[in-house]
Amino acid sequence: METFTQLESEVRSYCRNWPVMFNEARGSYVYDDSGRPYLDFFAGAGSLNYGHNNPELKTKLIDYLVNDSIVHSLDAFSVAKRDFLKTFGEVVLAPRNLDYKVQFPGPAGNNAVEAALKLARKYTGRETVISFTNGFHGMTLGALAVTGNSMKRGGAGVPLGHTATMPFDNYMDGQTPDFLWLRSLLEDSGSGLDKPAAVIVETVQGEGGINVASKGWLRGLSALCEEYGILLIVDDIQMGCGRTGPFFSFEEAGITPDIVTLSKSISGYGLPMALTLFKRELDVWEPGEHNGTFRGFNPAFVTGTAALNTYWRDEVFCKETLAKGDMVGDRLAAIAAEYPEAGAHTRGRGLARGLAFAQEGAAKAVAAAAFERGLLLETSGPEDEVAKLLPALTTSVPDLEKGLDIIDESVRAAVKVPLAV
Amino acid sequence: METFTQLESEVRSYCRNWPVMFNEARGSYVYDDSGRPYLDFFAGAGSLNYGHNNPELKTKLIDYLVNDSIVHSLDAFSVAKRDFLKTFGEVVLAPRNLDYKVQFPGPAGNNAVEAALKLARKYTGRETVISFTNGFHGMTLGALAVTGNSMKRGGAGVPLGHTATMPFDNYMDGQTPDFLWLRSLLEDSGSGLDKPAAVIVETVQGEGGINVASKGWLRGLSALCEEYGILLIVDDIQMGCGRTGPFFSFEEAGITPDIVTLSKSISGYGLPMALTLFKRELDVWEPGEHNGTFRGFNPAFVTGTAALNTYWRDEVFCKETLAKGDMVGDRLAAIAAEYPEAGAHTRGRGLARGLAFAQEGAAKAVAAAAFERGLLLETSGPEDEVAKLLPALTTSVPDLEKGLDIIDESVRAAVKVPLAV
Amino acid sequence: METFTQLESEVRSYCRNWPVMFNEARGSYVYDDSGRPYLDFFAGAGSLNYGHNNPELKTKLIDYLVNDSIVHSLDAFSVAKRDFLKTFGEVVLAPRNLDYKVQFPGPAGNNAVEAALKLARKYTGRETVISFTNGFHGMTLGALAVTGNSMKRGGAGVPLGHTATMPFDNYMDGQTPDFLWLRSLLEDSGSGLDKPAAVIVETVQGEGGINVASKGWLRGLSALCEEYGILLIVDDIQMGCGRTGPFFSFEEAGITPDIVTLSKSISGYGLPMALTLFKRELDVWEPGEHNGTFRGFNPAFVTGTAALNTYWRDEVFCKETLAKGDMVGDRLAAIAAEYPEAGAHTRGRGLARGLAFAQEGAAKAVAAAAFERGLLLETSGPEDEVAKLLPALTTSVPDLEKGLDIIDESVRAAVKVPLAV
Amino acid sequence: METFTQLESEVRSYCRNWPVMFNEARGSYVYDDSGRPYLDFFAGAGSLNYGHNNPELKTKLIDYLVNDSIVHSLDAFSVAKRDFLKTFGEVVLAPRNLDYKVQFPGPAGNNAVEAALKLARKYTGRETVISFTNGFHGMTLGALAVTGNSMKRGGAGVPLGHTATMPFDNYMDGQTPDFLWLRSLLEDSGSGLDKPAAVIVETVQGEGGINVASKGWLRGLSALCEEYGILLIVDDIQMGCGRTGPFFSFEEAGITPDIVTLSKSISGYGLPMALTLFKRELDVWEPGEHNGTFRGFNPAFVTGTAALNTYWRDEVFCKETLAKGDMVGDRLAAIAAEYPEAGAHTRGRGLARGLAFAQEGAAKAVAAAAFERGLLLETSGPEDEVAKLLPALTTSVPDLEKGLDIIDESVRAAVKVPLAV
Repeated sequence: METFTQLESEVRSYCRNWPVMFNEARGSYVYDDSGRPYLDFFAGAGSLNYGHNNPELKTKLIDYLVNDSIVHSLDAFSVAKRDFLKTFGEVVLAPRNLDYKVQFPGPAGNNAVEAALKLARKYTGRETVISFTNGFHGMTLGALAVTGNSMKRGGAGVPLGHTATMPFDNYMDGQTPDFLWLRSLLEDSGSGLDKPAAVIVETVQGEGGINVASKGWLRGLSALCEEYGILLIVDDIQMGCGRTGPFFSFEEAGITPDIVTLSKSISGYGLPMALTLFKRELDVWEPGEHNGTFRGFNPAFVTGTAALNTYWRDEVFCKETLAKGDMVGDRLAAIAAEYPEAGAHTRGRGLARGLAFAQEGAAKAVAAAAFERGLLLETSGPEDEVAKLLPALTTSVPDLEKGLDIIDESVRAAVKVPLAV
Repeated sequence: METFTQLESEVRSYCRNWPVMFNEARGSYVYDDSGRPYLDFFAGAGSLNYGHNNPELKTKLIDYLVNDSIVHSLDAFSVAKRDFLKTFGEVVLAPRNLDYKVQFPGPAGNNAVEAALKLARKYTGRETVISFTNGFHGMTLGALAVTGNSMKRGGAGVPLGHTATMPFDNYMDGQTPDFLWLRSLLEDSGSGLDKPAAVIVETVQGEGGINVASKGWLRGLSALCEEYGILLIVDDIQMGCGRTGPFFSFEEAGITPDIVTLSKSISGYGLPMALTLFKRELDVWEPGEHNGTFRGFNPAFVTGTAALNTYWRDEVFCKETLAKGDMVGDRLAAIAAEYPEAGAHTRGRGLARGLAFAQEGAAKAVAAAAFERGLLLETSGPEDEVAKLLPALTTSVPDLEKGLDIIDESVRAAVKVPLAV
Repeated sequence: METFTQLESEVRSYCRNWPVMFNEARGSYVYDDSGRPYLDFFAGAGSLNYGHNNPELKTKLIDYLVNDSIVHSLDAFSVAKRDFLKTFGEVVLAPRNLDYKVQFPGPAGNNAVEAALKLARKYTGRETVISFTNGFHGMTLGALAVTGNSMKRGGAGVPLGHTATMPFDNYMDGQTPDFLWLRSLLEDSGSGLDKPAAVIVETVQGEGGINVASKGWLRGLSALCEEYGILLIVDDIQMGCGRTGPFFSFEEAGITPDIVTLSKSISGYGLPMALTLFKRELDVWEPGEHNGTFRGFNPAFVTGTAALNTYWRDEVFCKETLAKGDMVGDRLAAIAAEYPEAGAHTRGRGLARGLAFAQEGAAKAVAAAAFERGLLLETSGPEDEVAKLLPALTTSVPDLEKGLDIIDESVRAAVKVPLAV
Repeated sequence: METFTQLESEVRSYCRNWPVMFNEARGSYVYDDSGRPYLDFFAGAGSLNYGHNNPELKTKLIDYLVNDSIVHSLDAFSVAKRDFLKTFGEVVLAPRNLDYKVQFPGPAGNNAVEAALKLARKYTGRETVISFTNGFHGMTLGALAVTGNSMKRGGAGVPLGHTATMPFDNYMDGQTPDFLWLRSLLEDSGSGLDKPAAVIVETVQGEGGINVASKGWLRGLSALCEEYGILLIVDDIQMGCGRTGPFFSFEEAGITPDIVTLSKSISGYGLPMALTLFKRELDVWEPGEHNGTFRGFNPAFVTGTAALNTYWRDEVFCKETLAKGDMVGDRLAAIAAEYPEAGAHTRGRGLARGLAFAQEGAAKAVAAAAFERGLLLETSGPEDEVAKLLPALTTSVPDLEKGLDIIDESVRAAVKVPLAV
């Protein structure tokens, strides 16, 4: 590990909590260089919804590479890109009546977000974008300006602007009606809020602490945007591709965003890929006005196509995720119920779940105890107050139960409960 | 192709000049879906310095995937990442006495640039970054602010700030001494230039038109930065990894930048990967202060390691590139000499070469004629006035000659020469 | 008047509602060029708290000018400036235990605001300043960025930044606890609000519609600022100098702002003058770091000194203003009570009073009707929904009653009341 | 003076060099509280072109005040404002064929500059404004962003943007053709300079060190602006109102700026007043889109009208200024010629003159020596390297000679000349 301490920047992060050397990975397990398995409830921060090295996708990927098919083609036409686009249209867009154009903005989620913000501003001719408390959208300057985390914002080195932060659903504990503040600002020409180009929102804030927006809130937000001529951007980078059950996390609410960002699990295999989707009439880009070297990474199109064909041609996968999600939610609720003194409670939708603690440090201690027991579990939220479960959607029920057993034990071991009087 | 026109955003670009469907690729050739070969003097905009599907790298990549080695690991430790770091240290850094820390800022060049800018601003506590006329550094807001192209800047939708543009080497045709303007501004406390955090520069501006900075100019810039306590960032995304001969394009000038960005050919196989390198003392990042989903894409580390081992353990590859570059340069100069009326002239270093025309539209016509003849050739420069040659460094001499023959023919066919009187 | 339409910019405004040529002015009356008197309930937008051409001040001013005393002295020492400073210290600061340093930032309120914002940012090293819905602080870029009015913001021509807007007292009709939103943002490191340098607030928003902050709200804001290390700036440009009774409008709440801005009535005679006051420890200015040509306009110091000596050496003036204010408030309330169908209601403190209407256009119609009847009355609020009373504090009770009679008549004439069913 | 040290902010500046208490002032002399006269070659930084308490203007001013004419009327119509506008049209605009609209933007120069910048951005829909090295335009955020001085810029506390700095005439000592850099940036779509809304320039930079733009340079700048559709703003706040001879300093060059700012001497008596003038077609302001409390300060209109009537109805005043300017210039040149070792040289036009020294500290020492000898003389330039002469234009020739004698003596006393070898 000396190689890392000697050569890698101090910015490295996950390796500090999991100080082992990962080597192999299959399905819901990763293995370190000694062969020790770890059950993975982290799934590449949501990039591995179909598990590590999913065999259906792997076959296609290796065939593609073995045949010397083209790997890197920028935005030239390629067979693999055509197949992906066609499949995405047939399997994802058409059945949902989404008349979206597809942009390949670069390989990473932040590229999708930056393209979305640029397009929204260009289309509307306005600058301000509304983001929400504890939103997370990426580390490049445009994306960082709509991200809430103060430590990450501080890294910018310049003031971040052209944005306004608004309360996410239930942010103020139900003490105010939904959108009272935002609506007041929009209605009042003296409010100081310049008319926004767009709103950018996650339906479930993953990095922000598994904060779930209710269907009603999302519908209200969508209606408000429509009323005021503001574009609605759903950042579905972490919660899309089935994480909450349906392909898009916003489907349940019955809304149609103007712009949608996808990345993480869209390639299905951990290969860098991102998409920005938008309503046809928003496609006011000039050719080449936004570009990027890795926007045509064909192996990702190949595995992405395979993932769509394998999991999204019918409803089965979605239903399984919802069922698994309910099971995980119930089990977490039962665990939480035993720790009222630690302020334990649960959050989540589908297979994006959180076990939150009011007690300082509890979630981090639980994650550390879980790691010792062979379970990868991340924390999230502004104070790392939530143990975050993002298992691969393909995780078997027994493996989910096994992971939950470890969590149960870890909470027992890690959370200090005051003695009853 | 209807799939594309129906579903893909109008932002698509390269496919407009090369309206065929690429399918396979080997070495310096790509093949469309009818099997027609194209000699590739574009190389993924410099991302394929070792050719398409390089067999040395391919073997390692397929082995890695077949064995279910871990693909996606963020910034956790992995065997593949360790091997890459170790090899990079041994093969690249140590022999050049570069005491750099390595940051994995995300998969794309813009991530490397954004991280470089953030770090420079954080380290110095200043905001202004100096960039150069016709510089190109990426499409995310931070990177776009140091990019010169007005069409691309216009896509931002917000004013781009915290930067100042300065003349690149020879920008004003030798009518002013080097750095007269920049030095005047720095010396004069009333100049209106806020003290800069950093300068960001390409040694050869690829997108900007194959504009070559001389060794003397680069040394002067480095000295000026040192004199005024300004960090020097060399963006070596397109010109690094051997494009100009040596691994880093700045080696020839004998300078040591404070920060260096790499991407494009660093994985060697067209796999998305990027690095930000900086002097050890600049490593003031907090853990996790800059992050990103695809910053631990192991297949890219595997091919990157293989590329370093294959090409960079001795001087042979560098020397071959220089020799090929001289050959290409000479041949282009001979072609250019025949078209003084079209203002033809050549530019370049190593295997980054340009055939520039004063005559409007000539370079685009040449590229179109070359495509008809089976050669992929991009144009660059603010008015697309340069036919740009970025062949894979592994291109054989006969293939280079073949491509140059096509260029010769294409110029003959495309450039209108006034009749001699 | 052709001179104006021919030569003056379309930006002119008040003259559109009062299309007469003013010529003379005494006390609470102005006279047009035909000698017609107008009772002035506008008082130079609060700049003439002691009436037009107040004789006590006039004597001193004319003596000063007749004697060829120095008029313009920048920030050199002058006898008039010394006398003002000394008197201000004795009459205003010392009795209120305010250990403030005094800056002369330029002749206008916006200079005082700009200096306050610059100092707060310099002192704290932070950029964000919190302003409030419907706040008004001036038209220069720094002041405009903390001003709410969208039409005026739109005039900037560049995005306005480094600010965040928060709800003023009672903005959301009591549906949320005070400061719930602001406190939530400050407490939450993931909120997206960068730690503010300062808060800038008016205790009564004059331009914003005579919105009164309660004592409790102001105390809460002050406490919140102290808790989080944020500077509290009270912009007392319109409400200071006795407009609400006491010299400073914040005295009643028992708070001590870190920074206070004064202008408008500080010279007492309509002469341009402004002050920025701040706690001694905040005085981190470098000599000359903020300057301005008209920051040493001695005639304004002379009348300012005279005003302090005449009105502020005891409590009488304050008490009279409060009594007059109560009288005006009661009378307005009685008027409002007759127009529930027009949503009439009253607002205000001291002699800053508003008669607000829910019925669209009512306030403007009232002001127009009042003008016809010889009363100058401005409207304010984002939709001009408030008839705004800012009579000179020296207005006699009979004149106040006369004005209120005109208002009564004007409402009767102008406000359309639906027939009772 | 304890009053000042105790109560006034450390930002105070001029009083540090002239630690006496000024009291009276007549013509070209000011008197301290002991009655000691000082010959004033500073003239309120150019605000007192007609001398202190000019008797022609004084009579009108006192009459106006004695008669209880209206002092403060915002932008309502007033007789005094009409008279000013009418006179300004007849005496200034019409004879020069300037079809300008007049805006009263507030009492200070920075108000005029802020209004000019806002209007230029609004009219063009662009953000960037080009300013020049060592330009000075004011301390409010918009004006400060086009000001060069780094100490003053540092006071902003936020990054200053939407601007680009360009070399003033002769900035790089004749080593480059005029406008080579600016023209290159404008011509090149890849330059990184966003298309500017406007250029703001002083014809002679007063604060910047009495740097004179040649007629040719100004004409070139005007032509360049016209060629590229960029608005030309001449900031004539310090150099207008006859300082260089003609009423506007740009007349000599035969150019017609799109926008002109005036302040300082426009009232003629040191009363705060400012104007923004612009071509009729630029008058796209909405009523009230820019406003300000002291934009209708009638006493300033009265003295301003009197000044125009007294000095500008014929050519005499202009010619006298030019003659005096030549005399002062010749005499300074003779002084400078004696101190080649101190790098002494002269600068200036009309009665804006500078005696510059390469030797560090020399100019400040000269100013200090002059003060001891009863002459007020400011220094300017980024390093205070210029003793700056801005005598009232009404200063008699004997008084000019007296001042120059003092300067001669002061140089002799203060400038250390190395012994001849």
